[in-house]
Amino acid sequence: MPLPGEPIAAIATPVGVGALAVVRISGDGVHGIADRIFRKPDGNAGTLAGSAGYTAHFGRLYDGPQLIDEVIALVFRAPHSFTAEDMVEFTCHGGPVVVQQVLKLLLDSGCRLAEPGEFTRRAFLNGRIDLLQAEAIGEMIHARSESAWRTAVSQMKGDLSEKLDGLRESLLRSCALLELELDFGEEDVEFQSREELALQVEELQGEVGRLVDSYQHGRIASEGVATVIAGRPNAGKSTLLNTLLGQERAIVSHMPGTTRDYIEECFIHDRTMFRLTDTAGLREAGGEIEHEGIRRSRMKMAEADLMLYLFDISSGNLDEEIDDIRRIHTEHPCARFIAVANKTDRAASAEMAIGRVHHESGAEVIGISALEGKGIDTLKQRMGELVRDLDKLHEASVLVTSLRHYEALRNAADALRNARELIDHHADTELVAFELRSALDYVGEITGRVVNEEILNTIFSRFCIGK
Amino acid sequence: MPLPGEPIAAIATPVGVGALAVVRISGDGVHGIADRIFRKPDGNAGTLAGSAGYTAHFGRLYDGPQLIDEVIALVFRAPHSFTAEDMVEFTCHGGPVVVQQVLKLLLDSGCRLAEPGEFTRRAFLNGRIDLLQAEAIGEMIHARSESAWRTAVSQMKGDLSEKLDGLRESLLRSCALLELELDFGEEDVEFQSREELALQVEELQGEVGRLVDSYQHGRIASEGVATVIAGRPNAGKSTLLNTLLGQERAIVSHMPGTTRDYIEECFIHDRTMFRLTDTAGLREAGGEIEHEGIRRSRMKMAEADLMLYLFDISSGNLDEEIDDIRRIHTEHPCARFIAVANKTDRAASAEMAIGRVHHESGAEVIGISALEGKGIDTLKQRMGELVRDLDKLHEASVLVTSLRHYEALRNAADALRNARELIDHHADTELVAFELRSALDYVGEITGRVVNEEILNTIFSRFCIGK
Repeated sequence: MPLPGEPIAAIATPVGVGALAVVRISGDGVHGIADRIFRKPDGNAGTLAGSAGYTAHFGRLYDGPQLIDEVIALVFRAPHSFTAEDMVEFTCHGGPVVVQQVLKLLLDSGCRLAEPGEFTRRAFLNGRIDLLQAEAIGEMIHARSESAWRTAVSQMKGDLSEKLDGLRESLLRSCALLELELDFGEEDVEFQSREELALQVEELQGEVGRLVDSYQHGRIASEGVATVIAGRPNAGKSTLLNTLLGQERAIVSHMPGTTRDYIEECFIHDRTMFRLTDTAGLREAGGEIEHEGIRRSRMKMAEADLMLYLFDISSGNLDEEIDDIRRIHTEHPCARFIAVANKTDRAASAEMAIGRVHHESGAEVIGISALEGKGIDTLKQRMGELVRDLDKLHEASVLVTSLRHYEALRNAADALRNARELIDHHADTELVAFELRSALDYVGEITGRVVNEEILNTIFSRFCIGK
Repeated sequence: MPLPGEPIAAIATPVGVGALAVVRISGDGVHGIADRIFRKPDGNAGTLAGSAGYTAHFGRLYDGPQLIDEVIALVFRAPHSFTAEDMVEFTCHGGPVVVQQVLKLLLDSGCRLAEPGEFTRRAFLNGRIDLLQAEAIGEMIHARSESAWRTAVSQMKGDLSEKLDGLRESLLRSCALLELELDFGEEDVEFQSREELALQVEELQGEVGRLVDSYQHGRIASEGVATVIAGRPNAGKSTLLNTLLGQERAIVSHMPGTTRDYIEECFIHDRTMFRLTDTAGLREAGGEIEHEGIRRSRMKMAEADLMLYLFDISSGNLDEEIDDIRRIHTEHPCARFIAVANKTDRAASAEMAIGRVHHESGAEVIGISALEGKGIDTLKQRMGELVRDLDKLHEASVLVTSLRHYEALRNAADALRNARELIDHHADTELVAFELRSALDYVGEITGRVVNEEILNTIFSRFCIGK
């Protein structure tokens, strides 16, 4: 564990070519460190250590006689800073070499390189923000869509924290009363009638349940609609994938910070982000890999929010395709489903064939030509319409977007259900109190009121250095 | 031409994922624009428009009711800002979506998107920096090596500007005296003896000449040592290129902002940057393209600071190779030259063969196996030693690094030479004054004292937006 207060330094802005970059330092004595390398143009205009917080100072950074850069130094004084420690933010020129030189100078002057997430971790440990807000900052930075950004902003603002603090207070009240009863153990008093307690637990169950349920929306807002393109090897899945991504490639990137052994890419249509899984690549490999590939494809299909079953409308064996469509549609009742009839350019009477597939399989069918890019706009529009209700985040006030929060809430829900059953069965007060205390701990884990070093390490190691 | 003072906005930090990003606005009324979207946490704590320059303010940006981000707003008041206009720099969270949202909000609130280099252009037009310093900022940001960065820092500090201002003053004095003589035209007076003038021009010629000569060092510091790998198609040029770049790939990038139809990549060895040109790819194409390729390869070879002639030591026809080495070495007397004997792993008695090639061609020969990576360290070390004198920028005080400055200085040198000849031939005062005036204008072009809209457009259009 790093020492709190030890002076740390890191580049805070993205790496690359830009006009400006920010390198920041935080910890005990950083104003003095800054003063040793920073000179104002007019020599005797006072030190950074002697300056008020929230003031900026133009000057130059020197490594001995060597000018490093002209910078603006922004002074923060504890506890009024992001980390609640003394801080200085240097705004320097934005070239990769310049920024490295500035960082090197700070490391040579008594700071050590910050660990990933260390600035935010200090902000949390010093009580400036709760764990949810710390995570929100991380999600905000990595947001790849407006929805993801919006949910992160709401979480940063503390909407979810507020909700959870409310839950925690109710739970604390009930726990306290039960534990008071236990203290008076011999006397068999009830500070709260069991009927009242049951009602209160029921209410809490409802609130926790709503948060658990919001996870599907939250996950979609944050990660996009899980969309799987399934179909036989020759159906044209890769072409469709590329066509869907095609025009939007510029804003597409692989999932940052995660290692996955299948390909996922995202595109945004009408503000909804779709996360496409290419099961195609996996199925077309041979031997054992193919077997493993098919297993993974099945898993991705089971998790899909939206499934596109692609088939070749120009092929001779439409009957088999109709059977497949009916079967896959039935096997995945949770996913929205579109049968996509490809190669309409090659089919003699595509429209009639599409009508037949629709009639016999019961599935919605959209005709396209992935190769010629025909029907793609219609397909995208229908994809958007089908998942509109899943992505209705503008209406929902508070969304759970993180798997960590979802799991903690599910555990809290289980504990509340147990408590409820114990009350109904007139079980010992101790047992009820234990379950309520568990629920309380699970909720506390989310905001970080119950701190677990392992959870902290997991959360902050995912941050980039400089955050 | 954009209106000066019109409020402009741009993202100033590199695009990507980072903890922080800076979005800045400059121009008339930007404090008022900022106040419409920025709220401090404690409501009535005053406006940004009412705040002193060089003060920072924590708060939130709102688009109507929608929270956009928590930011630090840094206020600058004209003329004490980078552009010498009113400015605000917002430090927001560093995710690509967040930053776009902040920029969008500013554009919706009355700013227009800045053109590339517009902030720096305003700084120049408002007299905050001269043209050399503006260019230095651009070079600093794009610097790919410590040398490039160091020369840019020196230029930003104004070392070259000071030198040129000195030149300009001497020239101005002589011009003024000559023009005074012309005013007294009829009376045939000499305010400065022609001998004195000749001496002064000679001195100026010396100074301009030294600056012109410094361009080779300056160019190498800024762009790297132009290194060409030549040799027959089967010699293994591509493998050597990749091996040389290999371990350093992480810091390699293509030349930014330039379009070139040959491949150039850089690597840094012991602080010296080598810019490798792959003539291989060109020569191996067929037909007309090959012809054009060979022409370009020849051109690159003629411009090379360092040439590596790669040959296959295991091949049967060493005599032909020795002839080639001797011929190419002679044809390129300016370039440092190493004959690189590849495939030492396959040659029976590689050392003896190398000795023979060295003896018969007179060239320095280094044996390597590009495939096995053997001998590469030795090669790199020799490359470094051979060009050490070219890259001796630590000793040189002022270097010319830009082709624009080099050409202007060459023109100034030509004008001075003409002036000198005219004086020696006792030509009319008018003619001498004309040449000195030309030299003055060429020198003035460099720092921007003589402003040419076309030059400004060329310089600033190469900047990124936000600079």
